[in-house]
Amino acid sequence: MSVEIIGIAGLPEVGPGDDLGGLICQRAELEDGDVVVVTQKVVSKAEGRVVPIDTDDPRGHKALVERESVRVLRRRGDLIISETQHGFVCANAGVDLSNVAEGHAALLPRDPDRTARRIRDRIRAGAGVDVAVIVSDTFGRPWRCGVTDVAIGSAGISPILDLRGTTDALGRELEVTEVAIVDEIAAAADLVMGKARNVPVAVVRGVDRAWFGEGTVRSGLVRHPSEDLFR
Amino acid sequence: MSVEIIGIAGLPEVGPGDDLGGLICQRAELEDGDVVVVTQKVVSKAEGRVVPIDTDDPRGHKALVERESVRVLRRRGDLIISETQHGFVCANAGVDLSNVAEGHAALLPRDPDRTARRIRDRIRAGAGVDVAVIVSDTFGRPWRCGVTDVAIGSAGISPILDLRGTTDALGRELEVTEVAIVDEIAAAADLVMGKARNVPVAVVRGVDRAWFGEGTVRSGLVRHPSEDLFR
Repeated sequence: MSVEIIGIAGLPEVGPGDDLGGLICQRAELEDGDVVVVTQKVVSKAEGRVVPIDTDDPRGHKALVERESVRVLRRRGDLIISETQHGFVCANAGVDLSNVAEGHAALLPRDPDRTARRIRDRIRAGAGVDVAVIVSDTFGRPWRCGVTDVAIGSAGISPILDLRGTTDALGRELEVTEVAIVDEIAAAADLVMGKARNVPVAVVRGVDRAWFGEGTVRSGLVRHPSEDLFR
Repeated sequence: MSVEIIGIAGLPEVGPGDDLGGLICQRAELEDGDVVVVTQKVVSKAEGRVVPIDTDDPRGHKALVERESVRVLRRRGDLIISETQHGFVCANAGVDLSNVAEGHAALLPRDPDRTARRIRDRIRAGAGVDVAVIVSDTFGRPWRCGVTDVAIGSAGISPILDLRGTTDALGRELEVTEVAIVDEIAAAADLVMGKARNVPVAVVRGVDRAWFGEGTVRSGLVRHPSEDLFR
């Protein structure tokens, strides 16, 4: 069994209202069962979520981060770890100054699951193929240094693979039963995207077709604060 | 640019003292620049880290988890989130009852970075190729439901890709600068490993050769408690 991850380069610079799904159809030779991973940055640009900001005034950035947060969990220096309206816990509420024009900041898409659904529908209409779509972003995490890409939106794939009731190779019921496959796919896609290369889209080909299905990141993967041992 | 993830099946059942690196050489056609990902479970079996346990007595499991912990962070019901002697924060100190013989539990390898180094050396000696090696395990995390595979040991690859001083596609200095590439590779490998299939090894082919280098998970990726905003 093998899975292939293919970086899709050569997209033009994207702006508000651009047809991202259509651009992907033009650049990528998609097949049924592919998972198309699209970075938050290019989605935010297409959805007009890039806003002007006075980068010389740290208060402007801070105010923006607070506006995008529903709850601040931690502060250290300029860093704010907060919960967004989507339920994500991340640095600076996802407000990002890199890979956008000088004097601007990119905000998270308002509803990344909806974004994924629209791109999926657009690809089905444009290329006649049935794919899953993941919108990815780069988050830090407690306990471990460094960032990894995770899914902030998805369509056409179960965000969590539920193995409850299945058995291991020795026939014993599995303890670890819920695998966050959309996060694993987002992380895999980052292996060809990098942060500095201009590769905002990747195709992950060959994942288990049984993973295709219903669900959203928001309803399936975001942990409710009351269930979280660290909030 | 593309990356391929190839599952290596067909390894025999592994026991204490078995030559895991040698078995991998026999089953996989490795190339220079491959990253070989090996699951914790098969490493623990090869290193004699499977211990008998009275599975009918929950106190036995709990005592084992506490023995493998240096600090307990949270308890809820039977679940203990603790810090291991390696500095990992995970459920039940990594003590795992699945995919081991009835009445036994697998403990984490004592030094997974050393394990990775030994397998890497063994593959170089046996197959004449220069690969990186990652030992992976399945951890939960705060904020997000489900588990993902992460690296608990590595050799021949920088655990963190440090992009500080590099610029984005528009020439601006990057904000997100340290990418936990070994965790992303471990997550990618899980796409072909699954939890229920008998695929304890995967080869990740085509990652950026510039990522090959020095470092260990313990020294480079484990966050020191004093640097952690959530401990």
